[in-house]
Amino acid sequence: MATVEELKLRVRELENELIKCKQRQCAAEDAHNRPKIDKMSAEVVDSNPYSRLMALKRMGIVDDYEKIRTFSVAVVGVGGVGSVTAEMLTRCGIGKLLLFDYDKVELANMNRLFFQPHQAGLSKVEAAEHTLRNINPDVAFETHNYNITTLDNFTHFMDRISHGGLEEGEPVDLVLSCVDNFEARMAINTACNELGQIWMESGVSENAVSGHIQLIIPGETACFACAPPLVVAANIDEKTLKREGVCAASLPTTMGVVAGLLVQNVLKYLLKFGTVSYYLGYNAMQDFFPTMTMKANPQCNDRHCRRQQEEYKKKEAERPKVEAVQEEEEEAIVHEDNEWGIELVSEVTDAELQAASGVVPDLPEGITVAYTIPVEETAKGETVEETEVSLEDLMAQMRKL
Amino acid sequence: MATVEELKLRVRELENELIKCKQRQCAAEDAHNRPKIDKMSAEVVDSNPYSRLMALKRMGIVDDYEKIRTFSVAVVGVGGVGSVTAEMLTRCGIGKLLLFDYDKVELANMNRLFFQPHQAGLSKVEAAEHTLRNINPDVAFETHNYNITTLDNFTHFMDRISHGGLEEGEPVDLVLSCVDNFEARMAINTACNELGQIWMESGVSENAVSGHIQLIIPGETACFACAPPLVVAANIDEKTLKREGVCAASLPTTMGVVAGLLVQNVLKYLLKFGTVSYYLGYNAMQDFFPTMTMKANPQCNDRHCRRQQEEYKKKEAERPKVEAVQEEEEEAIVHEDNEWGIELVSEVTDAELQAASGVVPDLPEGITVAYTIPVEETAKGETVEETEVSLEDLMAQMRKL
Repeated sequence: MATVEELKLRVRELENELIKCKQRQCAAEDAHNRPKIDKMSAEVVDSNPYSRLMALKRMGIVDDYEKIRTFSVAVVGVGGVGSVTAEMLTRCGIGKLLLFDYDKVELANMNRLFFQPHQAGLSKVEAAEHTLRNINPDVAFETHNYNITTLDNFTHFMDRISHGGLEEGEPVDLVLSCVDNFEARMAINTACNELGQIWMESGVSENAVSGHIQLIIPGETACFACAPPLVVAANIDEKTLKREGVCAASLPTTMGVVAGLLVQNVLKYLLKFGTVSYYLGYNAMQDFFPTMTMKANPQCNDRHCRRQQEEYKKKEAERPKVEAVQEEEEEAIVHEDNEWGIELVSEVTDAELQAASGVVPDLPEGITVAYTIPVEETAKGETVEETEVSLEDLMAQMRKL
Repeated sequence: MATVEELKLRVRELENELIKCKQRQCAAEDAHNRPKIDKMSAEVVDSNPYSRLMALKRMGIVDDYEKIRTFSVAVVGVGGVGSVTAEMLTRCGIGKLLLFDYDKVELANMNRLFFQPHQAGLSKVEAAEHTLRNINPDVAFETHNYNITTLDNFTHFMDRISHGGLEEGEPVDLVLSCVDNFEARMAINTACNELGQIWMESGVSENAVSGHIQLIIPGETACFACAPPLVVAANIDEKTLKREGVCAASLPTTMGVVAGLLVQNVLKYLLKFGTVSYYLGYNAMQDFFPTMTMKANPQCNDRHCRRQQEEYKKKEAERPKVEAVQEEEEEAIVHEDNEWGIELVSEVTDAELQAASGVVPDLPEGITVAYTIPVEETAKGETVEETEVSLEDLMAQMRKL
């Protein structure tokens, strides 16, 4: 039989083992965190998570990489494109991310990057914040688990993108649309037109093999109400209006590429390097990447868009006139000397757009409008082009969908 | 003082608590797993991780998506591109993945997707396998934590890609090069030439703003010994030969895009849809995506490449001759009726390549050779083009690096 001394020893042993077990649990949880880093360093050591980013300065790509920490970006939609977008910005060390989504993680999402099976059932913003904080605790996060298209939420969304910047009260630097439906895109469009907020749109087709990104500068480039949203032609039947109950196809490849192109455009825009794209398409079937730009439509249905256009015209008129340029430059693309160094290619002029207001404007090869009127809604199954429906009618019909 | 009975009770309490603590740890680990799924289903329910992939059939993109489970792919290099490549293939439900890498996860890798801070210190293949198994337990994994360029490991690597397929003894269906140095690329090239193994190469520039993917069919397209590897011109100073101790820049965006383009090409190749790209470049500064193809060089230094070329010629000669084609087809790109439905564009003919064997061949806009002779090694800092060094000399010099 055990003596008191033996039993005491056993108690001490067990107590120690229990402490160790509990420490391992805490460690397993804490291990997901690294300590915060006050100042980005370019030091080339294995323990520096920023060394490969700061090397962009030495390589002559980015002048001031540390500036990334001063920016805040709102990501609306944390699905196949939005989650990877948020992860890339987090790993790049963005100052603050605001995430908006009302959906839950499902196993049916596992064919795209980012979410993992054990997160099924959690809200996407909650699951994303947890993962992203572990990846980079230096980023500030603000999450909103709601649908931005309801009236109350829309008001709150407007308030957060205009006051939820890195310094509370300041607007965010950029809004990214990573949503999967027309209504949410239109809500973002409406908010950004009213606030004069620059934003970028992204999209992936229902058949999973094409996608696009688009930069929208209210008053300057076409907004979502100026013209039907443009998508990349996939050279296959595209009668794929988003319908409830129909399961869209998706691929981690297409969504990863679109997220990569989107965040690359964000980095180029915020950190001022390279050429920021106005519209970049991706056709995965042919590996074709069409680009284009489209100016705002003076007849846009959105009054805030028209107001922004007036303000933009006024600013342009006040700008000192450009002196006579050299001949070689005249042949080059039109370069508007705006503050972010973007080249504006006037492929579609105001005049062309006005002339085309009865029909869908001519588009470069490989780009087509995102939505055509479903067969059921027209008399003889005509397409938009055939019926010569006006852009206004088209937009009105799309809003009804 | 405690009695024997009291102490015995305490021991039992502690033992129970310890069991519970250990169970919690196991549960935390097991929570990451979902049960295996025997048969891919197209059922549209939230709990089906394959519904969005099987929808590719209904959308008319892929004829037989389930076939993905019959393929095995080797990923060599599990870094910024390779880890995301492996994750995409895992989420797509590939049959088997073979991972090769000898590196450890470091915090300095956190500016790219996939690895997380708590994995720092683990071997990349071990950490990757753990994460990927949790994401999709239906995939078979085989990992090798070694450098394929040493003699013993190279022999083992050759053996595994020729026998490590889904059925042991069968070759893998595809080898993907996601390595970051010339020596490892040449090792893969040598192995695949000897085995007649089709492979795809990927690369990202040291300045992080360009990348490419390339399909190499031994005997048919140029191998790595046929011509200097091609990279995308970034319109910036490209004197960035991989040097030990110099910290290369990297971005999650560029690497995510390259991995996405690579795996998209893999899916198109394995599942026979769309057009498989022979060479697709990505210039992030200008959002420019050059494509090209290059035939094998009859004067290639690699004797196995020359042997594969002979075998390819014999097969081509045995193929029934194509009848007179219609005029419109004659103007189209040359379509070789090969079994995987790839279109071979003869932009660089054998004759052109032979004629150009003294200099670097003319390349389409935006593509340039990956390596030029470093200034130190030439007398007056001339570039390859200026010195008219032969391809053979160039390759010999590169091998010495």
